[in-house]
Amino acid sequence: MSLQSLPGFRDFYPDDCALRNYIFLNWREAARRYGFREYDGPPLEPLELYTRKSGDEIVSQLFDFTDKGERHVAMRPELTPTLARMVGARERDFKKPIKWFAIPQLFRYEKQQRGRLREHFQFNADIIGEKGVEADVELVCLLVDTLRGFGLTHEDFVVRVSDRRVWAGYLESLGIAPDKHAAVFGIVDKIEREDGAVTQKKFDALGVSSATVAAILKFADTGEFASAAPAAMETLKRFLDAMAHAGLGQFIRFDPKIVRGLAYYTGIVFEAFDVKGELRAIAGGGRYDNLVKLVSGVDLPALGFGMGDVVLGELLKQRGLLPKVERRLDAYIVVAKEELRSQALKLVHDLREAGLACDYALTPAKMGKQFEMASAFGARFAVVIGDEWAQGQATVKSLAARTEEKVDVARLVEKLTE
Amino acid sequence: MSLQSLPGFRDFYPDDCALRNYIFLNWREAARRYGFREYDGPPLEPLELYTRKSGDEIVSQLFDFTDKGERHVAMRPELTPTLARMVGARERDFKKPIKWFAIPQLFRYEKQQRGRLREHFQFNADIIGEKGVEADVELVCLLVDTLRGFGLTHEDFVVRVSDRRVWAGYLESLGIAPDKHAAVFGIVDKIEREDGAVTQKKFDALGVSSATVAAILKFADTGEFASAAPAAMETLKRFLDAMAHAGLGQFIRFDPKIVRGLAYYTGIVFEAFDVKGELRAIAGGGRYDNLVKLVSGVDLPALGFGMGDVVLGELLKQRGLLPKVERRLDAYIVVAKEELRSQALKLVHDLREAGLACDYALTPAKMGKQFEMASAFGARFAVVIGDEWAQGQATVKSLAARTEEKVDVARLVEKLTE
Repeated sequence: MSLQSLPGFRDFYPDDCALRNYIFLNWREAARRYGFREYDGPPLEPLELYTRKSGDEIVSQLFDFTDKGERHVAMRPELTPTLARMVGARERDFKKPIKWFAIPQLFRYEKQQRGRLREHFQFNADIIGEKGVEADVELVCLLVDTLRGFGLTHEDFVVRVSDRRVWAGYLESLGIAPDKHAAVFGIVDKIEREDGAVTQKKFDALGVSSATVAAILKFADTGEFASAAPAAMETLKRFLDAMAHAGLGQFIRFDPKIVRGLAYYTGIVFEAFDVKGELRAIAGGGRYDNLVKLVSGVDLPALGFGMGDVVLGELLKQRGLLPKVERRLDAYIVVAKEELRSQALKLVHDLREAGLACDYALTPAKMGKQFEMASAFGARFAVVIGDEWAQGQATVKSLAARTEEKVDVARLVEKLTE
Repeated sequence: MSLQSLPGFRDFYPDDCALRNYIFLNWREAARRYGFREYDGPPLEPLELYTRKSGDEIVSQLFDFTDKGERHVAMRPELTPTLARMVGARERDFKKPIKWFAIPQLFRYEKQQRGRLREHFQFNADIIGEKGVEADVELVCLLVDTLRGFGLTHEDFVVRVSDRRVWAGYLESLGIAPDKHAAVFGIVDKIEREDGAVTQKKFDALGVSSATVAAILKFADTGEFASAAPAAMETLKRFLDAMAHAGLGQFIRFDPKIVRGLAYYTGIVFEAFDVKGELRAIAGGGRYDNLVKLVSGVDLPALGFGMGDVVLGELLKQRGLLPKVERRLDAYIVVAKEELRSQALKLVHDLREAGLACDYALTPAKMGKQFEMASAFGARFAVVIGDEWAQGQATVKSLAARTEEKVDVARLVEKLTE
């Protein structure tokens, strides 16, 4: 008889929605301080926007379908291709670097696993039009300060950073041709989550010798390498130095195991993790200098990160950093005499007009019940409309202090906002 | 080469997004004053959630598809069925009346027409668990005050109100059986937008005599009727009186032509229009006492309205009530000597840490260019890091007042927030 929601999709009852809005508020606040402007795109896009970037294999993970106009479309699994399309279409309208953020809801047809959702909200921040490493610094500073804005410290999270150009130089020095690098990154990205034998099998399939695999794994583990990519290493060093200058060095760790799974990253890449290593990545991103051109034809360097609401929410909950959700009303109007209902209605409206959050019992209810509602709804004051109304007064009860006084109706707003 | 968005879907560039957020902010502010709490549901739901309520004919207007788990699903065309499902599932957890609002993005596969979008955002406010007309008053007061919150007055909009129970009584007195009422409402709902001959043809098809059609049209036009539905008329009168008591009588007009197209309304119905009658409805809603039971099996009276962002945005634009979108920064840091870049980076971070919105040129740029950016980004102050840094000072220029002074670095936050 009764209908259910789809698996992997969340209902946000008011308490859940309040926590979601708390997370959104903090995201927006961090973006404001950094001068990022908010944008958004459509939740439904042509499928090709995603396959052009990620290949056809992504389709198995999408909510895609053919619409009534015979277009093959998909619910957005990420916002970056939309951003690339939008910026490319109006490139000349915006001063560089473009610093934009968004809070899209994203959709993936994930296999059903414990805690794996098929939708989540994500804080997306991107910088477009700046190839200097200073942009990478700006972006990762925003990432760190966004998490710090929730009360998280360096004892809670760390941003692990690497650079695909450093990796590329090292792989070339090992004799691995550039056309195999993406495949190697795909394997390295999963090292920590996969059994060693699986990793070895994948390298075998790629035709990488045992000695070379050992070198790759050692590099992934230690970060020690010869001077295979001096320019890239110099850039990475400048990045690390600048993070320290900004005062955020303790949040950053060079870690070559971070390469990111997606094919399109071209430079510094990073992922934020809880220090205890209990949760999936809190956030991840990096530089993708070729994507805007691929999608829009306009050649602009770019970089960005995404931070989902789910893992972040789990971490904040673990650390006791989620606020207690409390209902708040400025006043609950208690109608003590039913014949004064019209006057009460007028008063409620006047108080709301003055900006106060007010409520009242829509239909006749016992006094005790009305006070119960006032309390349940978190009202600071109960305003009783009764006999004293004839003298132009109402009784104002402070529900916290448990005091009461008669107040002239003309002075009510003043009293309730003091 | 470059990819396009889908027809009927909007990109929100930062200026557009700022106006969208302005509308959302005003919606939330009105809801706050009225004690409505925010909720949300999934943008994708089982198709049956919509067909159970609206019949199979709605499918032609939906973005529906079969997902990879063989479920027939649809992108939400409205939020009310989701609300009914959610409330029904946890009915005992919430004190009545439940007053909730949401700002969902909704999707309809509309035929492509000028200005017709396939998505929009909608302010949804609903009251559940209260059958008294006082709930209808509360809801319509919220509707009126939401629009007033944007600066609109009774010279800009009017809420036209009717009651399906009054209509039902009148139709019965004309000898039209209850099973034909929904069809009659479907015809009456379109009277204003359709040619008279079309209306007549529809009534003919329904087997309604010419004399009866004339009576219906006269009633729709004048609201004059015999005492066919005294109880319903008494309720409607109490509604109109209460709106006047609240001080909002001038925004309300009894108008029987308003019946709403959807089948599920059961009582008072209403639509808000611009007074000039140039635009489609700004908002609409009414009482739907049977829907929660239909969807969830839990019998609860309910009522609600929806207000879209598109028509409202057009009206606000016409009336000059949309705010000018302006970028705002507290400070733009101008790096006058490149060797001080690390210090500038530290300062930018310290200012952001103090809550200030700051930006700076990520890579070396001429002083003139940097001041240009400061101005373009709406900075109140430019903070110049140059020779005076050796004395622990920076030069603070007010971009509006065109004044400047040297300020000790330790006093910078104080100066920039004064």
